[in-house]
Amino acid sequence: MKKRIFGHIPDVKVGDKFNNRDLLSKAGVHGPTVAGISGSKYVGSDSIVLSGGYEDDEDFGDVIIYTGAGGQNSKKKQVADQTLDSVNLSLAKSKTESLPVRVVRGHNHKSEYSPKSGYQYSGLYLVEDYWKEVGKAGYIIWRYRLVSFDSSAPTTEVNEPPADYVDPKRKSSSSNKIVRDYQKALNVKNWHKYKCQVCGLAIETSAGLYAEAAHIKPLGEPHNGPDSEHNILCLCPNHHVMFDNGGFTIADDFTLIGLPGELTQVKVHKVDIRFIKYHREHYYKNT
Amino acid sequence: MKKRIFGHIPDVKVGDKFNNRDLLSKAGVHGPTVAGISGSKYVGSDSIVLSGGYEDDEDFGDVIIYTGAGGQNSKKKQVADQTLDSVNLSLAKSKTESLPVRVVRGHNHKSEYSPKSGYQYSGLYLVEDYWKEVGKAGYIIWRYRLVSFDSSAPTTEVNEPPADYVDPKRKSSSSNKIVRDYQKALNVKNWHKYKCQVCGLAIETSAGLYAEAAHIKPLGEPHNGPDSEHNILCLCPNHHVMFDNGGFTIADDFTLIGLPGELTQVKVHKVDIRFIKYHREHYYKNT
Repeated sequence: MKKRIFGHIPDVKVGDKFNNRDLLSKAGVHGPTVAGISGSKYVGSDSIVLSGGYEDDEDFGDVIIYTGAGGQNSKKKQVADQTLDSVNLSLAKSKTESLPVRVVRGHNHKSEYSPKSGYQYSGLYLVEDYWKEVGKAGYIIWRYRLVSFDSSAPTTEVNEPPADYVDPKRKSSSSNKIVRDYQKALNVKNWHKYKCQVCGLAIETSAGLYAEAAHIKPLGEPHNGPDSEHNILCLCPNHHVMFDNGGFTIADDFTLIGLPGELTQVKVHKVDIRFIKYHREHYYKNT
Repeated sequence: MKKRIFGHIPDVKVGDKFNNRDLLSKAGVHGPTVAGISGSKYVGSDSIVLSGGYEDDEDFGDVIIYTGAGGQNSKKKQVADQTLDSVNLSLAKSKTESLPVRVVRGHNHKSEYSPKSGYQYSGLYLVEDYWKEVGKAGYIIWRYRLVSFDSSAPTTEVNEPPADYVDPKRKSSSSNKIVRDYQKALNVKNWHKYKCQVCGLAIETSAGLYAEAAHIKPLGEPHNGPDSEHNILCLCPNHHVMFDNGGFTIADDFTLIGLPGELTQVKVHKVDIRFIKYHREHYYKNT
């Protein structure tokens, strides 16, 4: 199982330079030594390199309009349409999962932000949008709007999911480990196969299934709920909005209050009744 | 019809001082001369004053934990539970509509951020959370977490909706005018009575009905869609996520592609087919 690290690499600072792709890979900043996008379509993309390989790339510093991979011949000429699969899908997944992407600029990338030689780590970006369009060469390309964000986010280690990750007929795995928030949210979503614990719906997008990790007792002051799976529900956006804004709450026996039915649970995911009680006492209007 | 202004008041700068509540009201910063919360439960709250009247208020500068109104006797002692109605509901509505709230600190408010005399405009805050708890006096109070945000947001004028605003049996009004974004989003939501144009659902929260204004051709680079009602749909959060992430799109005859059915429309809301086409060509995987 391959380990994939989201966020900064320990001991690598924004602005650090690497003479070549091998050293960049050994430092853990960008694994592949040729490909521009590092990612898994099941988990997301952890890093990209801007190296002048795609004529449609645009670089505004804090905002990058990046081009997906594929459709080029051996001379790097665009000769076919790109598809939203493989690493292109991984970058879309980084959007729907709000995962940070490490950005590296190479000397071949035509931009005032590029280093004069070698490769330079530019910090963390979020994928804010992805779409397709007809590129300069007349073929469909997938594009990504990457926006720089405060890079004090914690480093997160993700293990690649096993092959049975998306096949519900095979034995489901709960062995993928992530340190801190991303992993905990992903764990809860995976345990429920992205199905809302209230309505059973899993939202379908072109990046795959989508669900939200809803903290029961909110994080931060003055609530100070823990960032733990026991304090997270897997909800669709609609029920997340309702839950956070007093549209419904949950009884100690997990029946819903304000909505019919009860919270769907799976054995591996233990919801702590104390957080449910906190939510009921603080967020529901009529209790 | 009373005019309510959201955002900064023209010519009033953050830090400006006012000797008394009458001058504060005349300047348009905070209308009521006694009440701490200015707002309508149908539209939202446009401003609050911190003046030491509520023992549970907490002030951390950029973050304020504010207490709702009500439940006090003539000596400002908490003697009864507060309810989520009237101006308290207006502050909750400001959360679900993401409206900016002007914050004013008075000399009576015990905080290092208070002026030594009179009242001082502290800028714009967003309501990030609202909940109830048992206050120091033993009665239920409603609380609001207000967080300072970049105050370059445009000023928005809102006219109070007429009384029939929330009564579907009476004649519906489309005459409430807001300058810029808030008004346009609100217009579209009101025209559809907060019902999703895809599924017909209006999300219920303790702050009232909830819907999202979804831009069809996205705002900003490189799409540069206009902030116009012709480019906005009223969607539930689920269909907003799906729409923005290629889960479905719309044909020129307004039938849905990727989902069964067709877009629900109302006469007053004209959706521009050119923006629909842009979305279809750029966001849907299979067209």
